[in-house]
Amino acid sequence: MADKGFTIGIDYGTNSVRAVVVDCGDGRILGTRVFEYPSGDQGVLLDPKQPHLARQNPADYIAGLSASVSGALAEADRHDRFSRDRVIGIGVDTTGSTPLPVDANAQPLALDPTFKNNLAAHAWLWKDHTSAAEAAAITETARRYAPELLAPIGGTYSSEWWWSKIWHCLKVAPDVFDAAASWVELADFIPAVLAAVRDPRDIVRCVCAAGHKAMYSDTWGGLPPKSFLSRLDPKLAKLRDRLYEKAWPPGRPAGHLSSEWATTLGLTPGIPIAMGGFDAHYGAVGSGVTTGTLVKIIGTSTCDCAIAPASARIADIPGICGIVNGSIMPDYFGIEAGQSAVGDLLKWWVEVVCGGGEALHAELSRDAAQLAPGESGLVALDWNNGNRTVLVDPRLTGLIVGQTLHTTRAEIYRALIEATAYGARTIIERIREYGVTIDRVVCCGGIAEKNDLFMQIYADVLGQPMLVAGSPQTPALGAAVSAAVTAGYRAGGYDNWTDAQARMTTLKEKRFEPRPDAHQVYDELYRIYRELHDAFGGVGGARSDVGTVMKRLLTIKEHAAGVVA
Amino acid sequence: MADKGFTIGIDYGTNSVRAVVVDCGDGRILGTRVFEYPSGDQGVLLDPKQPHLARQNPADYIAGLSASVSGALAEADRHDRFSRDRVIGIGVDTTGSTPLPVDANAQPLALDPTFKNNLAAHAWLWKDHTSAAEAAAITETARRYAPELLAPIGGTYSSEWWWSKIWHCLKVAPDVFDAAASWVELADFIPAVLAAVRDPRDIVRCVCAAGHKAMYSDTWGGLPPKSFLSRLDPKLAKLRDRLYEKAWPPGRPAGHLSSEWATTLGLTPGIPIAMGGFDAHYGAVGSGVTTGTLVKIIGTSTCDCAIAPASARIADIPGICGIVNGSIMPDYFGIEAGQSAVGDLLKWWVEVVCGGGEALHAELSRDAAQLAPGESGLVALDWNNGNRTVLVDPRLTGLIVGQTLHTTRAEIYRALIEATAYGARTIIERIREYGVTIDRVVCCGGIAEKNDLFMQIYADVLGQPMLVAGSPQTPALGAAVSAAVTAGYRAGGYDNWTDAQARMTTLKEKRFEPRPDAHQVYDELYRIYRELHDAFGGVGGARSDVGTVMKRLLTIKEHAAGVVA
Repeated sequence: MADKGFTIGIDYGTNSVRAVVVDCGDGRILGTRVFEYPSGDQGVLLDPKQPHLARQNPADYIAGLSASVSGALAEADRHDRFSRDRVIGIGVDTTGSTPLPVDANAQPLALDPTFKNNLAAHAWLWKDHTSAAEAAAITETARRYAPELLAPIGGTYSSEWWWSKIWHCLKVAPDVFDAAASWVELADFIPAVLAAVRDPRDIVRCVCAAGHKAMYSDTWGGLPPKSFLSRLDPKLAKLRDRLYEKAWPPGRPAGHLSSEWATTLGLTPGIPIAMGGFDAHYGAVGSGVTTGTLVKIIGTSTCDCAIAPASARIADIPGICGIVNGSIMPDYFGIEAGQSAVGDLLKWWVEVVCGGGEALHAELSRDAAQLAPGESGLVALDWNNGNRTVLVDPRLTGLIVGQTLHTTRAEIYRALIEATAYGARTIIERIREYGVTIDRVVCCGGIAEKNDLFMQIYADVLGQPMLVAGSPQTPALGAAVSAAVTAGYRAGGYDNWTDAQARMTTLKEKRFEPRPDAHQVYDELYRIYRELHDAFGGVGGARSDVGTVMKRLLTIKEHAAGVVA
Repeated sequence: MADKGFTIGIDYGTNSVRAVVVDCGDGRILGTRVFEYPSGDQGVLLDPKQPHLARQNPADYIAGLSASVSGALAEADRHDRFSRDRVIGIGVDTTGSTPLPVDANAQPLALDPTFKNNLAAHAWLWKDHTSAAEAAAITETARRYAPELLAPIGGTYSSEWWWSKIWHCLKVAPDVFDAAASWVELADFIPAVLAAVRDPRDIVRCVCAAGHKAMYSDTWGGLPPKSFLSRLDPKLAKLRDRLYEKAWPPGRPAGHLSSEWATTLGLTPGIPIAMGGFDAHYGAVGSGVTTGTLVKIIGTSTCDCAIAPASARIADIPGICGIVNGSIMPDYFGIEAGQSAVGDLLKWWVEVVCGGGEALHAELSRDAAQLAPGESGLVALDWNNGNRTVLVDPRLTGLIVGQTLHTTRAEIYRALIEATAYGARTIIERIREYGVTIDRVVCCGGIAEKNDLFMQIYADVLGQPMLVAGSPQTPALGAAVSAAVTAGYRAGGYDNWTDAQARMTTLKEKRFEPRPDAHQVYDELYRIYRELHDAFGGVGGARSDVGTVMKRLLTIKEHAAGVVA
């Protein structure tokens, strides 16, 4: 075995950026530093007059880059095994779709004094929802004229995505649109900064962002054709020339570390910068995703990632938001799905409705753990923030059924966890129906780390073990893995992803096994969930039978409580 | 105008008995006394091993009779206008169906030392639910062999009713059943006590209890035929001979005050005792019920009463629990309906789920009053305790739909009030569909007295004014009205119910007018409620369309909040 080097993973989150220094030999993190974005409300620029607006100041990204990496390196310096000259590459993951307009020198327009106070010139954060009308028009136009564009992205274009945002900018801030030489995803912008790219045409674009958010596919020659964009606005068709022709999977360099940044960070100039990618996708890499594995990043919402060999030519899967060749690892389709509210659903119940905090979370979790599956007699739909997969419908809301005059807040808390588990099972079943194997589930994120009740319920509902990723920082770790593969074996990295993941990623020993009795009850409850799901989701024609739901729940409840009816 | 006398109304509730002394000239209450039953848990005998059991000690009834009436008279004595020798009659209302077994001397079996500790020998309180299996078997048998018996009682026989309880006693306590010379409803028992009836065959039975709870009708010659009862158990057929042939509407005496009780109470012996009746029915009389009026007694649950001229020959109304000739006033059908949880639904939300008390009730009510109709985006079904009318199905449960991550506890509080209002509207619409006019709604009970938000929502949902009964003690007042009519004009009472109600009952000045804008929004929300009602209630075949419910609620919500979608 060659002597291994070190890589740096940089994870641009919603409120902060985190850098880690990783030992390529065993994946150990030797240094970490988090930098909180100073602008706006925890790094997010808001506009009280536009509740759906969420922007970020690109200056925060650049300030955070040197601060976080320098800090992580300083911590790593304390380890004898570490030396800066053996840092062989840098990887970057970010939120997305988070596009920003740049000038002809590839500098963010927001840094130009002319546009400093114009929110449209800043980065349009993934959760900016100002572009709902544009998203609907794009979906409508594509359905009519170019349905193939929608097939890989689940059939509906989102207000959170690239074209919706840029088109909205054209409408509300035409001066910004006109001044932009190009637009760049944050995932491509940071590598370009590190490589000191000075022309937007030289920025290397990742297929992760392009394929999932910008309707890019090699099948139709890259970004959507001008004929299609013209139907939206002729200026968008013209912009296409100033964007990019080609997007790439990870594994090749997006550039090399510039001498300026090498000096700033105390690293070797010219080391490769890995292709950027989204946090969830690199999180999957850092969780050890392989064929047959579903990685669940469980937080306020959930992102699910899986891969399937590109040679397998998998079908489009209805309702799965993205199937993009090379978006997670090269030569594999990256499959992305998600749930719009998971941790947020519990937070809503405990904090907004019950008016409690951490202590109440713990109390309800403890009380809910005393309940047998089915004992509450409740079933909920997990749609308080709409449904991302498989219905792809933001205009859905929550539902809970089965309450009596004795129903407690702990029972409802448990029913909400169960609802998210049923939602998770719906996604897995949909992916499997289309021929993709899922035989292993690995979880990461705060809930997976901390909430045992939650994980046990998932194991029981899904009927398979729930594994937990070894690192609490899987996105940054995944970016570091990408950097190790990009640097290559001879440099002290790896020739291939399998070896890199095998050495650099781990699972926790603690795992959650399904209990057969519980799984059997949850099979019945899941059937009821799916009936409500289809009925209220408007699936399968307009009419569904829900007339026996309450009685079946009561029977399950009585059985669970040992009451003979 | 003849010089008017005074009457006494005695109201036997679940936890206490209340007596009032009323001036027949103007309905003013001159004296009141409440006696809390000393036995069991607030007067209710429970059995930890049988959670559905609820009994009462007949000794409490008798102790409460002298204590409450003596106390009310003592208070009335302080008024110059009052004198005991001008008390012209006594009326009694009680809970029901509350049957008790009696011996050959018409004495409660529970007072016999042999049966003192036998719970089956005590009074079976209305809310005793131990007889669910018997109720189901009675319904099943009647549907098969004698469906006419079920027509006037909504199609389903209840575990709360007369025959279910007596049959259950026969099964679980045959010694009590065999020792019982007869069984008596509490509503008939108290008048018999006051009249010192010494033989159960001489107890005069009210059609209110007989018709609503014991499947009595003059149409088929009184109680159900022996052939039917034999199918349940031959011993029930034999018992029929020891019960009664005829039951009577109010307006005639159930007996006359015995000399013993006249001495005990300091009243004139021989004054008439009015026919007993149930609290809700006499509550309707005390609220001034007339043709076209619906009286709502709103408490933990709600009881609705209306009348229709007996000459009109109204149809059976599906799902309306009782239509009985003479059960409220003679020559009118008494129509009874109800909702299983109203105050209890709010109590559940505030106390069980939110963990608050009176202060939180007030806070949520204040916050909920700030919301516009539809603004919460929520619709709930008011079935946490099943549905009494019009689905007559205890195996239904609660539902709430439309939650987002911002939904507050006050929004849910309001949605629950609204749900009960939609339930109330469903009842009124059903009664109207079958040709009974309802053009005036009079409310009484604690909620009507105190909760203005609740009353305004009802006015807006129903689209008509909500009036409030003048007296907070409408059942006792109604019993006193009945006594005044029974005594007659020459004695200082009244010849007819219309005159008696006109003089003795009033409305509060405060009334709640429907607001047209709010009513329009509630019309839309009510449509959604009815769709959910029919879908989850299993009405109209098994299949219903609920696939657009969430979207319509969001549209209504956005409109209410002034947001342009």
